[in-house]
Amino acid sequence: MAGSTFGNILKITTWGESHGKGVGVVIDGCPAGLLLSEEDIQLYLDRRKPGQSRYTTQRQESDSAQILSGVFEGKTTGTPISVAVFNQDQRSRDYSQIADCYRPGHADYTFDAKYGFRDYRGGGRSSGRETIGRVAAGAVAAKLLKQLGVTCLAYTKSIGPVKAASFDPNEILQNPVGMPDASAAKKAAEYLNACMEHKDSAGGIIECVINGLPAGIGDPVFEKLDANLAKAILSIGAVKGFEIGSGFDAAYAKGSQNNDEFYQTDDKKTAKATNHSGGVLGGISDGSQIVFRAAVKPTPSISARQKTVRTSGEPIEISICGRHDPVIVPRAVVVVEAMAALTVCDAMLLNMTATLNGVLDFYRR
Amino acid sequence: MAGSTFGNILKITTWGESHGKGVGVVIDGCPAGLLLSEEDIQLYLDRRKPGQSRYTTQRQESDSAQILSGVFEGKTTGTPISVAVFNQDQRSRDYSQIADCYRPGHADYTFDAKYGFRDYRGGGRSSGRETIGRVAAGAVAAKLLKQLGVTCLAYTKSIGPVKAASFDPNEILQNPVGMPDASAAKKAAEYLNACMEHKDSAGGIIECVINGLPAGIGDPVFEKLDANLAKAILSIGAVKGFEIGSGFDAAYAKGSQNNDEFYQTDDKKTAKATNHSGGVLGGISDGSQIVFRAAVKPTPSISARQKTVRTSGEPIEISICGRHDPVIVPRAVVVVEAMAALTVCDAMLLNMTATLNGVLDFYRR
Amino acid sequence: MAGSTFGNILKITTWGESHGKGVGVVIDGCPAGLLLSEEDIQLYLDRRKPGQSRYTTQRQESDSAQILSGVFEGKTTGTPISVAVFNQDQRSRDYSQIADCYRPGHADYTFDAKYGFRDYRGGGRSSGRETIGRVAAGAVAAKLLKQLGVTCLAYTKSIGPVKAASFDPNEILQNPVGMPDASAAKKAAEYLNACMEHKDSAGGIIECVINGLPAGIGDPVFEKLDANLAKAILSIGAVKGFEIGSGFDAAYAKGSQNNDEFYQTDDKKTAKATNHSGGVLGGISDGSQIVFRAAVKPTPSISARQKTVRTSGEPIEISICGRHDPVIVPRAVVVVEAMAALTVCDAMLLNMTATLNGVLDFYRR
Amino acid sequence: MAGSTFGNILKITTWGESHGKGVGVVIDGCPAGLLLSEEDIQLYLDRRKPGQSRYTTQRQESDSAQILSGVFEGKTTGTPISVAVFNQDQRSRDYSQIADCYRPGHADYTFDAKYGFRDYRGGGRSSGRETIGRVAAGAVAAKLLKQLGVTCLAYTKSIGPVKAASFDPNEILQNPVGMPDASAAKKAAEYLNACMEHKDSAGGIIECVINGLPAGIGDPVFEKLDANLAKAILSIGAVKGFEIGSGFDAAYAKGSQNNDEFYQTDDKKTAKATNHSGGVLGGISDGSQIVFRAAVKPTPSISARQKTVRTSGEPIEISICGRHDPVIVPRAVVVVEAMAALTVCDAMLLNMTATLNGVLDFYRR
Repeated sequence: MAGSTFGNILKITTWGESHGKGVGVVIDGCPAGLLLSEEDIQLYLDRRKPGQSRYTTQRQESDSAQILSGVFEGKTTGTPISVAVFNQDQRSRDYSQIADCYRPGHADYTFDAKYGFRDYRGGGRSSGRETIGRVAAGAVAAKLLKQLGVTCLAYTKSIGPVKAASFDPNEILQNPVGMPDASAAKKAAEYLNACMEHKDSAGGIIECVINGLPAGIGDPVFEKLDANLAKAILSIGAVKGFEIGSGFDAAYAKGSQNNDEFYQTDDKKTAKATNHSGGVLGGISDGSQIVFRAAVKPTPSISARQKTVRTSGEPIEISICGRHDPVIVPRAVVVVEAMAALTVCDAMLLNMTATLNGVLDFYRR
Repeated sequence: MAGSTFGNILKITTWGESHGKGVGVVIDGCPAGLLLSEEDIQLYLDRRKPGQSRYTTQRQESDSAQILSGVFEGKTTGTPISVAVFNQDQRSRDYSQIADCYRPGHADYTFDAKYGFRDYRGGGRSSGRETIGRVAAGAVAAKLLKQLGVTCLAYTKSIGPVKAASFDPNEILQNPVGMPDASAAKKAAEYLNACMEHKDSAGGIIECVINGLPAGIGDPVFEKLDANLAKAILSIGAVKGFEIGSGFDAAYAKGSQNNDEFYQTDDKKTAKATNHSGGVLGGISDGSQIVFRAAVKPTPSISARQKTVRTSGEPIEISICGRHDPVIVPRAVVVVEAMAALTVCDAMLLNMTATLNGVLDFYRR
Repeated sequence: MAGSTFGNILKITTWGESHGKGVGVVIDGCPAGLLLSEEDIQLYLDRRKPGQSRYTTQRQESDSAQILSGVFEGKTTGTPISVAVFNQDQRSRDYSQIADCYRPGHADYTFDAKYGFRDYRGGGRSSGRETIGRVAAGAVAAKLLKQLGVTCLAYTKSIGPVKAASFDPNEILQNPVGMPDASAAKKAAEYLNACMEHKDSAGGIIECVINGLPAGIGDPVFEKLDANLAKAILSIGAVKGFEIGSGFDAAYAKGSQNNDEFYQTDDKKTAKATNHSGGVLGGISDGSQIVFRAAVKPTPSISARQKTVRTSGEPIEISICGRHDPVIVPRAVVVVEAMAALTVCDAMLLNMTATLNGVLDFYRR
Repeated sequence: MAGSTFGNILKITTWGESHGKGVGVVIDGCPAGLLLSEEDIQLYLDRRKPGQSRYTTQRQESDSAQILSGVFEGKTTGTPISVAVFNQDQRSRDYSQIADCYRPGHADYTFDAKYGFRDYRGGGRSSGRETIGRVAAGAVAAKLLKQLGVTCLAYTKSIGPVKAASFDPNEILQNPVGMPDASAAKKAAEYLNACMEHKDSAGGIIECVINGLPAGIGDPVFEKLDANLAKAILSIGAVKGFEIGSGFDAAYAKGSQNNDEFYQTDDKKTAKATNHSGGVLGGISDGSQIVFRAAVKPTPSISARQKTVRTSGEPIEISICGRHDPVIVPRAVVVVEAMAALTVCDAMLLNMTATLNGVLDFYRR
């Protein structure tokens, strides 16, 4: 079935495999008149580009985005924006190991179980390169949101046992692990070095905050804003958990602790004294900062020896060599940010028809 | 926008408010020929019925399900199954408190922000009664899944600090908190008694296991099985977090610990030695048990005094009296189970077109 | 699969069979704040009510609409509006003839081919009563459109060979055939009388005009306004053709004849000198009146003898007695109007996100 | 909004403008294991390629299809198939005329009305080149259908007043107008020559037949097979009408004439003695040949002088020179065939979940 499309009004469809001709995305439903250039998209893609530190794969890809349609004289036209990144570093490898066996923690076996066979080159469609289309689309959503005063910011909250304890947004792009805390980033790097020495890998947590979102965005039942964020984030490979606001801690709290009291601000707006809700109540944004976290599992490709089976069923021991990140988190940060931007942007567009007065205002302009 | 529909092939649409004429669901896309009676649905609804213990609201509702269409001579016809539960205990209350102010932790404010006003009677659409339609539909999905050898089972994993330590499935329906561990259930009840004495409420964690699901179900990108489960579960009011398999613990693990090794079973099937994945790899079921957990916040309605504002903005202190559960978890267990059944059932139906051979087999029968 | 839902933003889901407990619709996505009463809906339902003339079935149904949710204090709340009509005249008939054989021109055989069996009572889901949900939803869409200055009006253009030659909108509801031409209506009635005498039935054409629709509604590729109208209209049972503007006549015209020249009106608006386009160019409304027509086949239930087969395959001759309209057209007029209103309303709501300026205006209000 | 996606299980998303970098399509949901090459697609594209006769635009485009993803070792993998055709003949023209005024019969004005501006180069997104993506996707659908024993065949039924009177399928690709009747084709060519001499253009009718479709495909209410075909066909630019089976003629017929009697074939199958239904009863295929027709308007671009307005509102007379087909029909034939194949293929895939027995058979294999 067709599972490569995301969103309702702002709808994206991604395509492409790790070692095919390229990867890309068609972004449909972007309002006409948004200034958009390939540089806008490249800026986001560069944040997930490989080869930027010793903690990311050394595969050399320029990951250069081309806009093939939907932009005319520098502005979106309202028609689909097709963005493609053609693969360059497809060095002809020997894929016999990966073709022939089921790597633990990977989707090799499940693809075979579903489709009968798989494009085994570099993970095919389940490769991290699948996220390039998401990030390109997220760049467009982020640009649109910026016009509406909304920003999404994701960063590494923890790597293994090392947690960011302070928050300096300028620090996030300054260290190789994407943490907003220089001191923790240093410790995280040391932890990763140790993992690599032991031919192992590490997991971590990504946090994302969304600022400027007005109250009233999201829908009350199945299309809750947090439900759609959860789907968006869990749809990223390697993510195993999602929580909003107090999240799992809320399960241990009492109502008197977890409820956020309302008060009126000096400029006569309704606000909350605390933000255990993470900015969403009943599926609808409450005007506070949206805060959510994603749990990311350790890179499954490790060079330590692991037991597994061949596709024929025969037992085998493998050691996965090659270009693999010892941790997925830093490069997934921009993917989380992109998926958050897409989700929130779509919810804002959908929200325009919530009230008759809004509709009448629009058409009576 | 239209946010009351869930699913692709098996598609449900719920309607209804807490204190309107009733609540219900239209279940479209159920295959023809499934034996289905009102009793099948009632069995599930009775599990979320109020008034069953001192930990659930004392509102008296028989919550009696009527099938209005889609079943003929005891079997589903392939056309939409409309199920309605008409409200009975709509005792004419004084809603002025709830109409006039924003209850902390509730959706009163966000509904007003979105729609300009709200049906304030008993929480309106954001009431727990909204889940009746989900549970009725979940009963149908569960019946269909049973024919396919798939079962979903949810239970209370923890209430406040009290965790179930053992697993006896027969125990789940025997104690008022829905735990598979009689001894923990007793402690949880004591904890809840203490909460009630302090006019407070508790949160908890629901765990759900799905057995019998073949490998290959779910899609690799946006429609990952775990992504759809996450959305389904976060769409339940009061759920603040979702994790599958090792979940957030995976963020602290190393690759060598978190990877599940494959082996071949005696009957020549591919299996996993451990189940940190929770039964999903790359968004597709891997043939192991699906295991996920939902974090549920404490009931926001507490009788302790809380500060908040009137809809006019004026500060006010409120104490919410009336019929409220001190904990949401036990009654939400069957809702989690229902949403899981709907999600998995839809994924299995969608999966039938995954391969050309499957399609050819179907039409050449 | 789930084929009982129509629309994107304004999304309706119908349910119910001819002789089950009732029929109904869930209308999701209606903006909050629209004044709506059961009378608003009843007004539309009464136009398709049986037993109103000798040309409509004598089945006595009050077809009384109940709003079960989504309206509070007389206004829509933004949550799903559930409307039900409970069947009353389910006189216990002998269905053995219809259960046992395939009526020519009916869906008996195709339902069996698809689902393996069918609810044969009165046609089950393929009965004309299925349209009650559409009409109820259409009443809501029409009320919303009226606020936006848009009206949909359908009427009988021809019955058999008798065509309406003049257009008096007040006449439409005055004669039993729904024609805007009293003299043609009289001739059509005579034609129908003759059909009935010969135990036969007649077809006809319904025309629908939509006034007040601004230019710019509809989308340029798959979601063309006329494509969606065509689907909406062909989804009505017995409709076998759809054309917009000059329609099939355009196939015989030359470009110089069929093109509509543009000019500027006195109040500086762009307008067309003619309307061969029927108000749509490139799938998007051009500001002219929308005009389309639907071809409706003759009622398949006739009391003349017809050859067919039993479900067992055995040949049989049948003569369908009972309560059947000799022509479908007059009662289908309001169904066409309803489907047009739903389609146009949905397109207008979708159109609100077409431009960045529109989105910015909305959120900066 | 996002209107560039078509289909449910087999879902396609097209992108691209006439004179941008290229056009293309992402085909998602194609079952894995279908043999597919660029040649399969090219074969279909060549049928709509310009420059093939004096009745088609002389624009020189090789329209060479590249498969960018979704195919591995010659077979579809179940992941999205991205097909791109890069534009080559983008000769730098003077677009000032088309940029500055609203061509009669074109979408220039409606695009401006909707989006505020437009990509005016060669019609932008409303160009006939938009159909390249549809045809490429249709080639994939047709290949899949062939495996299921289903074929779609479209041809020119009439051009202006000249109708095909005989049916020789081998003739269709032999004459420049795509008629199955060599003699009529000759007269049609003469008619077109005359049109061209008078700087004018012609319309026509395309007929499409679908053979081999089993009974039971399509859904009974909104997703009727004929309703979806109508939408698919009306979504093609310049189509102004759709009819199935007897179509508009049914409106003039009597029930006794229009009903198709059932009988049993020698091999014990239920069949119809006639096919006024066009192969669909109640929205579901009845096992007969599907027959439908599309009315296509004359090419709006004519070199005769026409009155219109500038975008500024000022009146102007224009004469559209350049590369334009004097008739759209012959090149639209393959587009109709492609859209029919996509619609029917999707309906067959959706139909696999219609019955419980079918689902059980599938999973118990």
